Amino acid sequence: MKIELSKPFFVETLCIVGIGLIGGSLARALKSANAVGKVIAYDANEEALSKAKELGVADEIYTDLAEAAALADIIVLATPITVMAEVMATIMPVVKPAAVITDVGSTKGSVVRDIEARLGELPGRFVPAHPIAGTEKHGVENSFDTLYHGRRTLIIPHINNNHEAVTIIRDMWKAAGSITEEMGVKHHDQVLAATSHIPHLLAFSTVDTLANLDDRAEIFRFAAGGFRDFTRISASDPALWADICLQNRESILEVLVAYQKKLDTLKEALDEKDRDTILEIFSRAKHARDNFYQEPVKNRQD
Amino acid sequence: MKIELSKPFFVETLCIVGIGLIGGSLARALKSANAVGKVIAYDANEEALSKAKELGVADEIYTDLAEAAALADIIVLATPITVMAEVMATIMPVVKPAAVITDVGSTKGSVVRDIEARLGELPGRFVPAHPIAGTEKHGVENSFDTLYHGRRTLIIPHINNNHEAVTIIRDMWKAAGSITEEMGVKHHDQVLAATSHIPHLLAFSTVDTLANLDDRAEIFRFAAGGFRDFTRISASDPALWADICLQNRESILEVLVAYQKKLDTLKEALDEKDRDTILEIFSRAKHARDNFYQEPVKNRQD
Repeated sequence: MKIELSKPFFVETLCIVGIGLIGGSLARALKSANAVGKVIAYDANEEALSKAKELGVADEIYTDLAEAAALADIIVLATPITVMAEVMATIMPVVKPAAVITDVGSTKGSVVRDIEARLGELPGRFVPAHPIAGTEKHGVENSFDTLYHGRRTLIIPHINNNHEAVTIIRDMWKAAGSITEEMGVKHHDQVLAATSHIPHLLAFSTVDTLANLDDRAEIFRFAAGGFRDFTRISASDPALWADICLQNRESILEVLVAYQKKLDTLKEALDEKDRDTILEIFSRAKHARDNFYQEPVKNRQD
Repeated sequence: MKIELSKPFFVETLCIVGIGLIGGSLARALKSANAVGKVIAYDANEEALSKAKELGVADEIYTDLAEAAALADIIVLATPITVMAEVMATIMPVVKPAAVITDVGSTKGSVVRDIEARLGELPGRFVPAHPIAGTEKHGVENSFDTLYHGRRTLIIPHINNNHEAVTIIRDMWKAAGSITEEMGVKHHDQVLAATSHIPHLLAFSTVDTLANLDDRAEIFRFAAGGFRDFTRISASDPALWADICLQNRESILEVLVAYQKKLDTLKEALDEKDRDTILEIFSRAKHARDNFYQEPVKNRQD
């Protein structure tokens, strides 16, 4: 057993499966914290692998998933959520008995369901997790070691979980600078639908609506800082987010329907010049946001 | 005539009517550029006036609008758009013959229409304008002298306009650090509906929808940087934005209906697990935004 449970956290060999922004930043964070002996990486994309090696994010790179997984003490699945069950099926027969496997998927219900369906049961040493951090950039070339500093990582233990495995994953994220918290699968998917999945869907929808207008060139030219902030997440990876939206569709649809009703109310109020209704909605929104964010004054929005 | 047209721009007495973020930042910018002799301010709110004096944003403060306006070489209307016609009716009989009047309103059609209706015609020395800059904060205490640096100010000349007056207002905004550009009233309102008014309306709607969910405390707690950026503009002044939305309702409704159709398409695609449609919308949006913003890599979204 090459994982030391005593403080400080240290893992001898960390394998990142899918070396992009999220997996790359975790590798960098653990390296900066002297919490990892060796980072090895597998990716279906050989260019990403080469970049990871060049950038020093991975010490060794592998084009054979099983070969890499067999060497690791902790294996982090940072692939698209749609292939995680397949990855689990490939690696489970070859991993070390004491190895711990975790993932970083943005939806949890579908990942857990798919793996259970594929393997017959959830392995005790597989600990679902989700670091609530990211940028609109993707790829290992945009990874950086402070991405998780002060950010929450949700740990989603399941009924079969080995207690030690859960502790190891929690300590790994703490070593990466994150604040960890446990949460149930369903609750996770509801909260993330509201705070992340729906905002992405709406930002993509807004920009696509504007991009279809006749004077779209002007529109972007005259957009101010507010628009830039509001639409930043629409620069995120479309395929990644299409999959997230589909994998968490029940929770997303619930919020989306409520949102569409709100827009119907606002449209009617505009049609009828009903200032009170508009002001009521805007005021409640401002109140809610002000209550939850006490942000330092930001002088510019760009 | 105390306005020098030769470079550099200089105005002896500038009167700000409504001394908040926008008017206050203009006063500060012109002071920093040594482009103003004296800033005088009127505001219906005496507390705002006192703050402006204390902060050195205004050199003299007045609780009588006509008295202040009579002293000024340039008068900037930075009040809510709904009272601008009323302000014009008060000041026009008392202003110096050579004085130039301008406004900073976020909608132009309704402002021009209201003033024309109120005064019978648009005064030749009234030059509608709109600086495309702001933050979600309001009040003179949040004003700062670089708000307009590198930001566009749209000048919206009308058929009665005196050419010299238009030049003076253009030069004033250049002195404040802004890039000026002329635009027609209708075009202005369409472009601003798309880039500013609709995004504000949608951000308010999103946050109000989430604030009505059962687990709203959790929701804001687990929100990441993307959510913070996406919802930042929902911290803006609700009354100001309710008025803007009403004053520009025709242009806003046009875009809102297109947006609602887009959401219907996405909802249907989610219902039917139609990944292609979702991916198409998300990809077009990312493409449009990437094309118009070549932003420097931003390491964190907070």
